[in-house]
Amino acid sequence: MTHENATGYTIGVDFGTNSARALVVDCADGREVASHVVAYPSGDAGVLLDPSDANLARQHPGDYIVGFEQSIRGAVQAAAEDAAFDVLKVVGLGVDTTGSTPLPVNAEGLPLAMTPEFKGHLAAQAWLWKDHTAHAEAQEITELAKQRGEPYLAKCGGTYSSEWFWAKILKCKRVAPEVFAAAHSWVELADFVPAYACGTTAPDQVVRGICAAGHKAMYSDAWGGLPRKDFLTELDPALASLRDRLYDRALPSSEPAGALTAQVAERCGLPAGIPVAVGAFDAHHGAVGAGVRPGTLVKIMGTSTCDITVWPQDEQDEAQPLADIPGLCGIVPGSVVAGQYGLEAGQSAVGDLFNWVAKQLAPARYTQAGDAHVALTAEAETLEPGASGLVYLDWNNGNRTVLVNPRLTGLMVGQTLHTTAAEIYRAVVEATAFGALAIVNRFEDHGVKIDRVVNCGGIAEKSALVMQIYADILNRPMQVSRSGQTCALGAAIFGSVVGGIHATVADAMDAMTDIKEQVYMPDPQSVKVYAELFAFYRVLHDAFGGVESSATPGHLAGGVTMGEVMPQLMDLRDRVRQGESE
Amino acid sequence: MTHENATGYTIGVDFGTNSARALVVDCADGREVASHVVAYPSGDAGVLLDPSDANLARQHPGDYIVGFEQSIRGAVQAAAEDAAFDVLKVVGLGVDTTGSTPLPVNAEGLPLAMTPEFKGHLAAQAWLWKDHTAHAEAQEITELAKQRGEPYLAKCGGTYSSEWFWAKILKCKRVAPEVFAAAHSWVELADFVPAYACGTTAPDQVVRGICAAGHKAMYSDAWGGLPRKDFLTELDPALASLRDRLYDRALPSSEPAGALTAQVAERCGLPAGIPVAVGAFDAHHGAVGAGVRPGTLVKIMGTSTCDITVWPQDEQDEAQPLADIPGLCGIVPGSVVAGQYGLEAGQSAVGDLFNWVAKQLAPARYTQAGDAHVALTAEAETLEPGASGLVYLDWNNGNRTVLVNPRLTGLMVGQTLHTTAAEIYRAVVEATAFGALAIVNRFEDHGVKIDRVVNCGGIAEKSALVMQIYADILNRPMQVSRSGQTCALGAAIFGSVVGGIHATVADAMDAMTDIKEQVYMPDPQSVKVYAELFAFYRVLHDAFGGVESSATPGHLAGGVTMGEVMPQLMDLRDRVRQGESE
Repeated sequence: MTHENATGYTIGVDFGTNSARALVVDCADGREVASHVVAYPSGDAGVLLDPSDANLARQHPGDYIVGFEQSIRGAVQAAAEDAAFDVLKVVGLGVDTTGSTPLPVNAEGLPLAMTPEFKGHLAAQAWLWKDHTAHAEAQEITELAKQRGEPYLAKCGGTYSSEWFWAKILKCKRVAPEVFAAAHSWVELADFVPAYACGTTAPDQVVRGICAAGHKAMYSDAWGGLPRKDFLTELDPALASLRDRLYDRALPSSEPAGALTAQVAERCGLPAGIPVAVGAFDAHHGAVGAGVRPGTLVKIMGTSTCDITVWPQDEQDEAQPLADIPGLCGIVPGSVVAGQYGLEAGQSAVGDLFNWVAKQLAPARYTQAGDAHVALTAEAETLEPGASGLVYLDWNNGNRTVLVNPRLTGLMVGQTLHTTAAEIYRAVVEATAFGALAIVNRFEDHGVKIDRVVNCGGIAEKSALVMQIYADILNRPMQVSRSGQTCALGAAIFGSVVGGIHATVADAMDAMTDIKEQVYMPDPQSVKVYAELFAFYRVLHDAFGGVESSATPGHLAGGVTMGEVMPQLMDLRDRVRQGESE
Repeated sequence: MTHENATGYTIGVDFGTNSARALVVDCADGREVASHVVAYPSGDAGVLLDPSDANLARQHPGDYIVGFEQSIRGAVQAAAEDAAFDVLKVVGLGVDTTGSTPLPVNAEGLPLAMTPEFKGHLAAQAWLWKDHTAHAEAQEITELAKQRGEPYLAKCGGTYSSEWFWAKILKCKRVAPEVFAAAHSWVELADFVPAYACGTTAPDQVVRGICAAGHKAMYSDAWGGLPRKDFLTELDPALASLRDRLYDRALPSSEPAGALTAQVAERCGLPAGIPVAVGAFDAHHGAVGAGVRPGTLVKIMGTSTCDITVWPQDEQDEAQPLADIPGLCGIVPGSVVAGQYGLEAGQSAVGDLFNWVAKQLAPARYTQAGDAHVALTAEAETLEPGASGLVYLDWNNGNRTVLVNPRLTGLMVGQTLHTTAAEIYRAVVEATAFGALAIVNRFEDHGVKIDRVVNCGGIAEKSALVMQIYADILNRPMQVSRSGQTCALGAAIFGSVVGGIHATVADAMDAMTDIKEQVYMPDPQSVKVYAELFAFYRVLHDAFGGVESSATPGHLAGGVTMGEVMPQLMDLRDRVRQGESE
């Protein structure tokens, strides 16, 4: 319930891959008063790379401090131009970040990268979410957990990822033992920022968020926190001893991590003492910024896509609907909203796939007038579903959900000598929608119903083509979040809760979030054709994804043999094209 | 044996899809004295199209007459500039054409398209080889032959094609019964041209070539000529009655079809009475122009590729090596060289596939300096085999050999977010080479050894990239025919035989053909990597081609499951790339 008389402003700070953004929001109605973006000063657009290893992606922790202080200062200054705004009415502050992005710190909580000893050492930096150097270690963790019958992976899809906390730390131990040895503890970026802001960076003082802990570090109250020591010992005894210097408690973001120190507050242009919410990942806060609730799936569409939904915890006992959902990135109580399961899924490449076609496969006729996306979209919009005969598997960057396999690749079938880049562009958009449907189906097959989809991000706002295809393939209305900065808005919402304006996250969402007027409705004819195409997608998906088929040997999902895929796709294409000319 | 003292010139006329080319050749050494090309005047580059049916491709028979006379006249005029040339020393003339390109004629042998009644009627034109309107009829013929256990298809790959004689005629009966009814007979283009030149166009006078008859019309001495009446009756009684007005004898091209009439000779600028060889298809004469012999495969590489070889007929009884070769377009005694089996295979798209990438998928950076092929080739040449991780199935235009299925499509697997058009270009070149290897393997599995490959056509002459990849994948030296006009040269060789200069085709080939100095040798390291990649190609080929696998159920050729294809391709890619940096 909202304290109707309470007024105030809240600030959300969103740490992306290349920049930090601060957003000043009116707690009463979610009005976005001002925002300010600061690009990280280091590396290649904020990312430290290693030319000899394409898997490596790190960030300098100092960039986060710069990003935090300068983005807030800029946003507050911009907000000051709004007559109603008063900096003294800022009641709270929330933070979301990329993740899993762990960084090693010394006993005082100082990032090793900021010590003279390890300045410039790549292994001492923050290991950015998209660093994939630890793929062997991730596999090792998965195999050991399976072999020992540990419960740790059941809630994170059955496969530990190279992007995650323990894999990265184990990799560090192996390639840079001096860094590992010097690290008193490791802190997720989502926890580091609030700790820095509140002066609680000492390892035993850092408040850890349940979002990062539960989704990436195999933390659960069910087994007493982080994975047990005997498991870690078998992985590497040094990890077991590190466990003592990590944490045994993790909180949802509706709890405060502390209050802004005078020093940091001054640099931000804010009063000291403002409560700072426990940090979480961008997608999870984005879901809150888009008004997530049971039955609503929020899709944060960017270069990749994160799918977030929630499900009541108290229904657990009735039907155990959330026992396990194979292939899901995570099911963590309280990771999105306290008292509800937070469910996370994702697609490894969405906008990146569209960019790939636009950059690598679009001839001059699509690029001469400027942005290839515009020309490709214009031509793709003239095509009927199924008319190209193409089916694409959207795995150019692997498959995060439901196959959890980074060593998968793209696949295209159905091309003729007349296939155009615009047809491929549309097929690739459709592929990401088929991938999205595979995720929704997986949710629903395990009792988590999805009747409403809210999309966020630039693609959702800009591309009617993409949204209509998603509506037709998911056969559900596609809504678009009102805010163009849902992650920062979600962070601000938690600021409004720890600031005491709204009693609950649900109240805050009711007051501060909404959708845009335009909703994309499924077209019945397209729905029909796409249902047929999805059957082919599933055949290819299951075969190339290595999904064990329960069908007749030699036959694939839907009774189709692989040898029938091409001719049947061509039949469908011909039917659609004949339908066009009738 | 060559008549050493005999000297003279011979003319080959090659009827392509868009133009006719006449080549004047010295019988002694194959020296090409002069040539002249005439573009067909009608339609779209000589092809009559129907905007409402992409499968339709016809030609106006009058274009062939124009093409024949003007190309010869032009070539003879050009040859006159050579001091040694004397038009009175032209001893013979040979003709090759596309096929199967049948055309309906009236009782006088006049093409129906040249009668006032059917002028401009699309069904009355020549049905160009690449007309695919008859795909349902082709399937019907295949099914009926199988159902009745007829032997007709065993020598043409087990599947009748929509490109062929009977399918096109049956289609004509159905869509244009008035044309079918008016057609006294049907004549292949390869037979029409010599008949026109020799004034023997009356249906009972047309000399029919064994090449078109055996490869496309199911003609064989083994069953007494064309398919039996009861078979044709079951297909359509009208076809059975047409059979009486077709032919019961077909000859090899070393036999004369007749002699040049005074009227035609005058328009060609030649003396009357010159013997004209029986016509055949371009690829078969091309093989002769490239010096085909047992153990030598000639590849006529163009937009598509035709593979031709020969095998001694008298070895038949020893081991029955040529009983059946499943999937081959044809095995016809005498279709290339009298006394030997002519074996034909082919790939539906080769140059067309490269053109597809260059036209549809190459961004401006490849096209801004001009020809995309040049830039794509330059970049593709810098890539190591396997380093892109891509495997392509070269079926954008279906698969002619060994799967004989026009309703197959292209497939690409292995693409990441970094995949470039040049990598795809190379993968597509490799795909056509894998397809070529599948053909060579099919030959050898059935006793037809291939130890020498001679390539002809523009691609073979211009692209060292393509030739080197073919050498590495086929693991055989790639030779290139000395002549850039091997089809016309082959036709000229038959002119030299019917003109009495050379006693046999073998003698004529010895004297008149050769290879270029540059031979592309296999690179052992590339051979090794490509052998690994070919295993993946085979897995995909067999699965999507609908080849029944004898492997463990759920497993594919080579023991690989479909789910292992992508990760293993990535492993191979990583190994190759690491090898590069070592």
